Amino acid sequence: MSLKNIGEKIYHINKMETKIYLDYNATTPLDKNVRETINDALEHCWGNPSSSHNTGKSAKRVIDEARRNVATMIGGSSSDVIFTSGGTEANNMIILSAVHHFRKLYGLTNSNGLPSEKAKTHNSLASDLSRLDKSPKKRKLSDGDGDEIQHGVFYGDGDHKIRRLPHIISSYLEHPAVNVFLEHLKSTGQADVTYAEISQTTGRVEVEGITKAIRPNTILVTVMLANNETGIIQPVREICEAIRNLDRSELETEQIYVHTDAAQAIGKISVDVQSLGVDYLTIVGHKFYGPRIGAVYTRGLAKSETPLFPVFYGGGQEKGLRAGTENTGMIAGLGKASEIVNANLTEFQTHMKMCRDYLESRLTEHFKERVHFNGKFPGIESLPNTCNVSILGKNLQGHRVLEKCKTIEASVGAACHAQNKPSAILLAVGIPEDIARNALRLSLGRETTLADVDLVVEDLVQAVQELDAE
Amino acid sequence: MSLKNIGEKIYHINKMETKIYLDYNATTPLDKNVRETINDALEHCWGNPSSSHNTGKSAKRVIDEARRNVATMIGGSSSDVIFTSGGTEANNMIILSAVHHFRKLYGLTNSNGLPSEKAKTHNSLASDLSRLDKSPKKRKLSDGDGDEIQHGVFYGDGDHKIRRLPHIISSYLEHPAVNVFLEHLKSTGQADVTYAEISQTTGRVEVEGITKAIRPNTILVTVMLANNETGIIQPVREICEAIRNLDRSELETEQIYVHTDAAQAIGKISVDVQSLGVDYLTIVGHKFYGPRIGAVYTRGLAKSETPLFPVFYGGGQEKGLRAGTENTGMIAGLGKASEIVNANLTEFQTHMKMCRDYLESRLTEHFKERVHFNGKFPGIESLPNTCNVSILGKNLQGHRVLEKCKTIEASVGAACHAQNKPSAILLAVGIPEDIARNALRLSLGRETTLADVDLVVEDLVQAVQELDAE
Ligand SMILES: Cc1ncc(COP(=O)(O)O)c(C=O)c1O
Ligand SMILES: Cc1ncc(COP(=O)(O)O)c(C=O)c1O
Repeated sequence: MSLKNIGEKIYHINKMETKIYLDYNATTPLDKNVRETINDALEHCWGNPSSSHNTGKSAKRVIDEARRNVATMIGGSSSDVIFTSGGTEANNMIILSAVHHFRKLYGLTNSNGLPSEKAKTHNSLASDLSRLDKSPKKRKLSDGDGDEIQHGVFYGDGDHKIRRLPHIISSYLEHPAVNVFLEHLKSTGQADVTYAEISQTTGRVEVEGITKAIRPNTILVTVMLANNETGIIQPVREICEAIRNLDRSELETEQIYVHTDAAQAIGKISVDVQSLGVDYLTIVGHKFYGPRIGAVYTRGLAKSETPLFPVFYGGGQEKGLRAGTENTGMIAGLGKASEIVNANLTEFQTHMKMCRDYLESRLTEHFKERVHFNGKFPGIESLPNTCNVSILGKNLQGHRVLEKCKTIEASVGAACHAQNKPSAILLAVGIPEDIARNALRLSLGRETTLADVDLVVEDLVQAVQELDAE
Repeated sequence: MSLKNIGEKIYHINKMETKIYLDYNATTPLDKNVRETINDALEHCWGNPSSSHNTGKSAKRVIDEARRNVATMIGGSSSDVIFTSGGTEANNMIILSAVHHFRKLYGLTNSNGLPSEKAKTHNSLASDLSRLDKSPKKRKLSDGDGDEIQHGVFYGDGDHKIRRLPHIISSYLEHPAVNVFLEHLKSTGQADVTYAEISQTTGRVEVEGITKAIRPNTILVTVMLANNETGIIQPVREICEAIRNLDRSELETEQIYVHTDAAQAIGKISVDVQSLGVDYLTIVGHKFYGPRIGAVYTRGLAKSETPLFPVFYGGGQEKGLRAGTENTGMIAGLGKASEIVNANLTEFQTHMKMCRDYLESRLTEHFKERVHFNGKFPGIESLPNTCNVSILGKNLQGHRVLEKCKTIEASVGAACHAQNKPSAILLAVGIPEDIARNALRLSLGRETTLADVDLVVEDLVQAVQELDAE
């Protein structure tokens, strides 16, 4: 059976059964204009952007235009945007860049950002300390109390290992593309990681949680802008502000960089790198009706204000920061998806919020005190499209409810997680395990209607009735 | 101006000026059926392949089907194919895997493939040697003459560094996605690299060049299947055979893996991992009328016969080896492009060869002894579509000739190289510098016609006349 046939069959089955997709946080369909843009670029602008003939140059122009649209969407400059294969690559690349930068700061690497011979042979504490003293980057530290270097809290024998490792602060709310990678760096002895505590009254990582976790060797704070499961918006602006206002004379690293993974925020709320104050930001096309590629925003990249290191080495594309022939078609699509967000964000936002609020009120109406909204914390902002809800009852585990649903296509949490375990994110924000087990993540999209919501509620009511009777 | 307008304008300008594209080794257009497949998948199968609802499952099915088609194309098994963002990622990932595997073999890493704490503290020769002796992986070595371990040619003080580093053999013919990455590993002290000599009588890296370069710590040989500039086919099968037949008892590493970058070979000649005998193979969509993604073939991947390590960490896609939501549309397109090759290779091959041979004979007819084919070595096979030619004369540097051409869109070498320097590849195969400077890489495609060739020759004749007169 050809792809078209498979696709159409699924489509028709879905139509016949009136499936309603409520899994827009897992991925969105592509906007029709985005698809057309991709198709046009694949047809007309397929040249190699590095070629000097017209066929190449027209591809290059398409990429330049897309970069401008992506930059505009986040309030950044074109020259600060690098295209990647997706959000996972973007997150990994940013974290690795901070690690490499740290090693470079302390003479632990050569200019390519990886362990140098020198670093490998200088293993004793003595040589470490002498190297430290000579480092020109230690200026700020020696402005303070020099004694601390020799025998202070920072450089005792026990802390020796910590000092040589870059320290990263994050939280358990992050996507695996951050957390699994951090765990990898930790388990391979490449970085030290602290997961800041989550406030059980706000469902967020709070500023004090971050600042409390800061150590002399902290190089990066990575906190997502909006959580993919609860929809809760994290205080990223406040974190940036707090970090900027730290008394740096007490601290070892020259600067602590702040990264936010804005995968779930873009296209749903306004995202602006200037007002946020972040140094790095992750963009993921397929969460805002764009293609399966991504981008990295790096503040002042062209002026080397913020360090970014390549993961891949090769043909020198993307200013040498991301080798590989550019995926012109997908890049054009990401640009178009950004342009659409730029033009329509308020409308999308208002529409999704109206439907989501209607969904929540209909659910409350039906299930009354049995309903628990896992992403609602008093006074805390959240995405306009996300409803994370548990219906209380002993048979109502999320995956069982979804199995009984005839109309709804949704999930119990992130797509890449096991569907029959309580979500770690929900547990982290303080949802009791029995409630967390029943969670459904209903995430709405631009095309969701009030009529869809009625059908969704109807579907849930019948599923719950059936399970209650078991 | 919208993308479509830009594209159409370029297209019409090109039509008006009858541009003839002869840069198919830089990139190809997409086959119309590939574009349609991509568009269909983007429209109908946009779900997240990790989602358990129908919208997700239909995307997963599309990926499974594409994987089968890609595997069939290279004579491999589906379970040995991992999709990547492109050829650069594929090459980098394979090389990194060999490096990580080596470190693991010698207890220099934990299971994640990066330097372990243990490795960092075991820095003296003594501890190195004692570790070596205990390593279960050294079985084969101790089957031989045990003395060699203690004070032989391999483990003297001077060789100490060599033993701890993985050694990779390659050649100067490789694409930057191999060579630049190898240089990066070398300059950061992560690997030792030998570039095997190139035979000036065959334009290839020969088997003896490879076997001569083998050291106790050799872990990988990476030799491309066909060169992107000369089109010369490298003796990869013979290299695999020679490596398999080595007397391993004398050698330190358990196995030397062979990788071939088949980017330029696929779609032009038959490529079969079984008859080649390679352990790794790189697939690049946009060189065979497919999209800008790639794939890695790894022999016996499912049975862990050949080591492959992730570059990215996150959601566990592609068996945990390539995290990131799958680029379903592009993957479907890669599958379709493979299917088209599977069905039509002989026809494509015959057609391109006929046009290329006609081009070469027409060039000889016109420029007589002034013509030099840089990819022609007696008795040596080459791609059916590539004509690397220099027209001799003091003003006829490749980039100047192309500037005077009205019809031809071609390049002087790889797209990512500077256009006004002699190609390092041509110098490596022994082309004298003054001839190399005049090189044009004319690479033909499926849609090139004999009439195109006539126009191309006409165009070159006028360009040369003009430059001769300067
Ligand atoms: C031989 C060879 N290998 C690898 C690549 C790299 O592929 P990409 O630039 O698409 O990553 C290319 C083409 O650019 C190539 O010609
Ligand atoms: C918050 C967040 N970050 C990153 C990603 C990773 O993006 P991708 O899987 O496309 O690489 C996702 C979605 O999967 C996400 O929800």
